[in-house]
Amino acid sequence: MIATEIFDQLSALIGMDKVSVNVCVREQHGKDESYNSPSLPDLVVFPESTDDVITVVNFSAKYQIPIVPFGSGSGLEGSAIPVRGGISLDMNRMNRILEIRSEDFLVRVQSGVTKDQLNHFLKPYGLFFAVDPGANATLGGMAATNASGTTTVRYGAMRENVRAIEVVLANGTVIHTGTLAAKSSSGYNLNGLFVGSEGTLGVFTELWIKVWGIPESIVCARAEFPDITSCVEASTAVVSAGIPIVRMELVDSPYIEAFNHYRSSGFSVVPHLFLEFRGTSESVMADVRVTQELMKDEGCTHFVFVSGEKERQQMWEVRHHALYAFMHQHVGLRHMGSDVCVPISMIADAVRNAKELLCTMELQGAVLGHVGDGNFHVSLAVNVDCKEDLSRAHAFNERLVALALRVGGTCTGEHGVGLGKMKYQEKEHGTALETMRLIKSVLDPQHLLNPGKLIDPS
Amino acid sequence: MIATEIFDQLSALIGMDKVSVNVCVREQHGKDESYNSPSLPDLVVFPESTDDVITVVNFSAKYQIPIVPFGSGSGLEGSAIPVRGGISLDMNRMNRILEIRSEDFLVRVQSGVTKDQLNHFLKPYGLFFAVDPGANATLGGMAATNASGTTTVRYGAMRENVRAIEVVLANGTVIHTGTLAAKSSSGYNLNGLFVGSEGTLGVFTELWIKVWGIPESIVCARAEFPDITSCVEASTAVVSAGIPIVRMELVDSPYIEAFNHYRSSGFSVVPHLFLEFRGTSESVMADVRVTQELMKDEGCTHFVFVSGEKERQQMWEVRHHALYAFMHQHVGLRHMGSDVCVPISMIADAVRNAKELLCTMELQGAVLGHVGDGNFHVSLAVNVDCKEDLSRAHAFNERLVALALRVGGTCTGEHGVGLGKMKYQEKEHGTALETMRLIKSVLDPQHLLNPGKLIDPS
Ligand SMILES: Cc1cc2nc3c(=O)[nH]c(=O)nc-3n(C[C@H](O)[C@H](O)[C@H](O)COP(=O)(O)OP(=O)(O)OC[C@H]3O[C@@H](n4cnc5c(N)ncnc54)[C@H](O)[C@@H]3O)c2cc1C
Ligand SMILES: Cc1cc2nc3c(=O)[nH]c(=O)nc-3n(C[C@H](O)[C@H](O)[C@H](O)COP(=O)(O)OP(=O)(O)OC[C@H]3O[C@@H](n4cnc5c(N)ncnc54)[C@H](O)[C@@H]3O)c2cc1C
Repeated sequence: MIATEIFDQLSALIGMDKVSVNVCVREQHGKDESYNSPSLPDLVVFPESTDDVITVVNFSAKYQIPIVPFGSGSGLEGSAIPVRGGISLDMNRMNRILEIRSEDFLVRVQSGVTKDQLNHFLKPYGLFFAVDPGANATLGGMAATNASGTTTVRYGAMRENVRAIEVVLANGTVIHTGTLAAKSSSGYNLNGLFVGSEGTLGVFTELWIKVWGIPESIVCARAEFPDITSCVEASTAVVSAGIPIVRMELVDSPYIEAFNHYRSSGFSVVPHLFLEFRGTSESVMADVRVTQELMKDEGCTHFVFVSGEKERQQMWEVRHHALYAFMHQHVGLRHMGSDVCVPISMIADAVRNAKELLCTMELQGAVLGHVGDGNFHVSLAVNVDCKEDLSRAHAFNERLVALALRVGGTCTGEHGVGLGKMKYQEKEHGTALETMRLIKSVLDPQHLLNPGKLIDPS
Repeated sequence: MIATEIFDQLSALIGMDKVSVNVCVREQHGKDESYNSPSLPDLVVFPESTDDVITVVNFSAKYQIPIVPFGSGSGLEGSAIPVRGGISLDMNRMNRILEIRSEDFLVRVQSGVTKDQLNHFLKPYGLFFAVDPGANATLGGMAATNASGTTTVRYGAMRENVRAIEVVLANGTVIHTGTLAAKSSSGYNLNGLFVGSEGTLGVFTELWIKVWGIPESIVCARAEFPDITSCVEASTAVVSAGIPIVRMELVDSPYIEAFNHYRSSGFSVVPHLFLEFRGTSESVMADVRVTQELMKDEGCTHFVFVSGEKERQQMWEVRHHALYAFMHQHVGLRHMGSDVCVPISMIADAVRNAKELLCTMELQGAVLGHVGDGNFHVSLAVNVDCKEDLSRAHAFNERLVALALRVGGTCTGEHGVGLGKMKYQEKEHGTALETMRLIKSVLDPQHLLNPGKLIDPS
């Protein structure tokens, strides 16, 4: 079927205002925030209900048209790019917060709700949603990539914060995974399986999300270090001591430098840890005291408390805008980021190795990371039109991933597999990849859900 | 093939000392700690390595002989009973602790290692394993049922404490799920899927287990309440306040009474909460102070600190021996326990309803529970030879499960589905059960792994 026919038929089924073949709209849905080349969907559909999603999925099954769910398009691995055309299923109109059970610390949302929207809604209840990636992603997209972020060291990744999901399967059936109870040993753990499935096993329409009480006291600080190794080792010391730190973000000097240019600020151009503590005033001060001592032991030269809501926001801006600041220095280039995650005892070595590799390979890169989880990103600014540049960047990433896998880590701690990390799946999972393939093929036998992503048919 | 033939062939393959057709040995492997009727395996195999397990699994596939993994046989749902005969695969000889990475808080064990054995090993390292069910179960069995226990309110269930698994699949392939990193978005989350699969998807041969640092300070206390509702509501108040309590166990008065008889002790025969706090001395005292106040607000009549290692152990004995003490009062009867888990806001209502139901149905029952997780057990002493007694007990459980499902809970918070809870799977999972069936059938197409348990072929 050609796109106009699909358009006509789908319009008749769910309403013309929910379907678009407009080229601008398609272009918006043909890319994400990664370096991957765009690839346009044949059309974009904007479902407004679970029923709409079922209709589209059944339609796609009947005519064998690929479906690629689309959240905010903020992904960094090309997961939402419709590499085989078909339908981009834009979930943004499904953006209602449906139910709050504050005593249970649970909220039910449609999957197009974004994290900022949810936090705004929760504030009057004294609650917040704890997963904090850099972008204002949709909860559906975050669940689909098992996103995590600055606060994961304390509150876990999406997998720990999604209690239950309503999923439309490839055959149009709606299932509900999980329960509202804090734990369960009933049946297979589908909830944990669907989180992180990147739209390849089903379309998420609703989610029950775990939320948290806003703590009494928040204290932020930044710690400066003479070199990156002492900086990362200090973070490991804090984790080993069992301090329930909420945020502990490494921002390397090239990032600091980029941010200073970007915002005319004057941070010392040295490796930083940005820190946040939460709890009762007593417990926070106890945690801060121990942390400060540990950091000094590891060579911290300045430990600066950041008080006041505004000052705190300014500090976190450095972390959250680091990537934009860095790319600002490299106009015309695209961002290619690594996302390895290693056992915590290996993180200092891994970061040092990455820095050395940048040097020896003469690459422009900057490092930041959720070092408390063993997860860090090396951002490369890449000229995607220059074959040599691109292949050098790929070679760098391959060596970094090889290193992470060698020590028992993973090629992606939080961004997902998408297109960019499919090549590492065999190496990382070995024979388990075939088990994944079996699951994919039994749940989506026609391979219509986000085909060409995460996993290939064998 | 008849048992003697299987015996001969298997003996030739892996050694005669690893195979038994002795009737006593078979009887030991035909039951667990539940009320379910025994059913004998045709033979028992004692593998000593992953290679042995592969050999047995391949053999079973070739001749279509069921395999039922067997840990400690401490299960409470009949999960390890070989209802279709075949091979009971006793994992107890695979009991080596293989590797410790204390900086990563990880330890690699064979699946037959028990929890007490592991804790004994870890102590000199200043570490402990945090999942604490009442029995000295094997780690393989605990992973297979997603066991949890008294400390889950703080440290999570097995799913949160198993980082990676070596699994022998039904086709004899060995896969490795998970990684040693703290988080990952790579591929499908097989690790979370296999935890809780009750031997129906594969045999676990090795596990990477997460362990924790022994805290500086431990404080225990017991709180007495005039009635069970105020007791449970007090526990909810503590969870809602976000206090990182480590243990908070409800023990109802019939249990206290039974224990008093069993051990000639003199605890007040009222509903109790048994509590444990851990952390730095400062943080623990702050937590205790707030908890004590909250409990008083909810009607706590006595809040007694329990200090000294010996006294603490005595207190926890009440909890850990409650079931034995209760059954001691009912010689000749078997234990049938419920295991519902509900959203935390519903736990007080659910427990009250259960108590009322015991009354109106004229059943002898006692309640205890991990109330901080919304999970509680009603123990019934049942005369399994009396049809009426048995059917009344079943009717009670059915009504309790219906109540739990109505409020978004689960029929089993920690014991697993086994035989006893298969009848609730359709109701609890709805259309998702078919998805589970598909996964089972693609991973074990001959239905030889623990057949008749957790899930039936459609
Ligand atoms: C500046 C910046 C910083 C970032 N920082 C972080 C970080 O700290 N941590 C982190 O984890 N990520 C980070 N990211 C990456 C990105 O924000 C996450 O991957 C996020 O989870 C993507 O959500 P999205 O709504 O944008 O999804 P999209 O990019 O639109 O889609 C991502 C994947 O999810 C699928 N999907 C989307 N919605 C659904 C649905 N309803 N049902 C089924 N599948 C669906 C898509 O098909 C696709 O496979 C960052 C990105 C940027 C640009
Ligand atoms: C007094 C008492 C108190 C209890 N308290 C609790 C509690 O607080 N919390 C709780 O969760 N449970 C509790 N239980 C139940 C029981 O201890 C748990 O279910 C435990 O996880 C079972 O472990 P096991 O080694 O005895 O396994 P088994 O009973 O031998 O087997 C259980 C299941 O696991 C499978 N299995 C065993 N080993 C493997 C393997 N290597 N690979 C694959 N599958 C395997 C079996 O096939 C079976 O399906 C209690 C039991 C008793 C008797």
